[in-house]
Amino acid sequence: MDQPDRRQSADGPVEGAPLRRRGKALEAAIFEAALDQLTSGGFARMTMEGVAGAAQTGKAALYRRWASKADLVMDALVAVMPPPADIPDLGSAEAELRHVIQAYIAVLNSRTGAAVRALMGELDHERAEFFKGFMHERVVGPTAEGILGILRRGEARGDVRRGAAVSIVADVLPAMLLYRAKFCAGVFDDEFCEDLLGQVLLPAIRP
Amino acid sequence: MDQPDRRQSADGPVEGAPLRRRGKALEAAIFEAALDQLTSGGFARMTMEGVAGAAQTGKAALYRRWASKADLVMDALVAVMPPPADIPDLGSAEAELRHVIQAYIAVLNSRTGAAVRALMGELDHERAEFFKGFMHERVVGPTAEGILGILRRGEARGDVRRGAAVSIVADVLPAMLLYRAKFCAGVFDDEFCEDLLGQVLLPAIRP
Repeated sequence: MDQPDRRQSADGPVEGAPLRRRGKALEAAIFEAALDQLTSGGFARMTMEGVAGAAQTGKAALYRRWASKADLVMDALVAVMPPPADIPDLGSAEAELRHVIQAYIAVLNSRTGAAVRALMGELDHERAEFFKGFMHERVVGPTAEGILGILRRGEARGDVRRGAAVSIVADVLPAMLLYRAKFCAGVFDDEFCEDLLGQVLLPAIRP
Repeated sequence: MDQPDRRQSADGPVEGAPLRRRGKALEAAIFEAALDQLTSGGFARMTMEGVAGAAQTGKAALYRRWASKADLVMDALVAVMPPPADIPDLGSAEAELRHVIQAYIAVLNSRTGAAVRALMGELDHERAEFFKGFMHERVVGPTAEGILGILRRGEARGDVRRGAAVSIVADVLPAMLLYRAKFCAGVFDDEFCEDLLGQVLLPAIRP
């Protein structure tokens, strides 16, 4: 990890000139390649070799950081998911919930969003069962915690009804995103954001 | 279809004495066998032969009614799903929504519910992609319509706020069931029903 470029050149042939990148730049290229592979062929067909080739690095460079393609995909996913625990105080629960929804919509509509959806598509398949635990621990759980934080702050501020800062209320936002991604053709636009806020979330938490 | 017993005996050997059933009784036995197979091995491993054997009937009896195992599973699913379009006027939106949630909870916790969950587990897998369209057309859509009917009746009655009878509000109930089935260990009990009603649905639709 200290000298990725020197060790990379020892990993074997690399298509074209080996790119001199280290740390975050190399990691970003690897994550991008991993998510591209996930989008185009799904998790089952993804290989460490394929990712290394697409990222113009060596397979050994990948295995030094990630023991398996599952570990790599997990880190790549975490890197592109919005950090829901870091939601700043925007003055109102409405503004903060809009911030969370828009962050998720941006991810879902992005190029990497397609990879996230591809993975979601394999989530409950037998061979991808472990992703469920991961998604819960690293994505769904923190998202719920972040939203719970918004609800608690709103309770204290006074724009969220007392007692609404509970997990079943925090679950509504991710549940509606999941449901729409699965059943409703998956259109995520500003209209959906405002409908979800105005028709569901705000009425449910209004004091 | 008119003389299932006579034709059934011509379908070939049947384990044990061929059972003399027709119409609904035979259909129920076939659906039960189909859902059992779905639960134990998943859709991919399910076979018409296996279902026929478990239902103590012949394979031809199945193929007379269903062109493929996909058609059979669809009909079996529809038979065990609660009919959300038939919700009677129970005097309040709260009572009617509780009725819908409890009907779904009963199905999800039943023996056949395990089959429904097994199918949900294959829903977004590549080979089961067609189930998504089916689920939307035959289960998700009618459920949303049934809930929308409750919301409209409540709007007219006065216990649902004006403007709440829209699809995004009707989606909350199935979205929360799906989310819990996928990510929250899938515990469906009275506490969940009352929390979903009291903390999410009723606050969201209150006038």
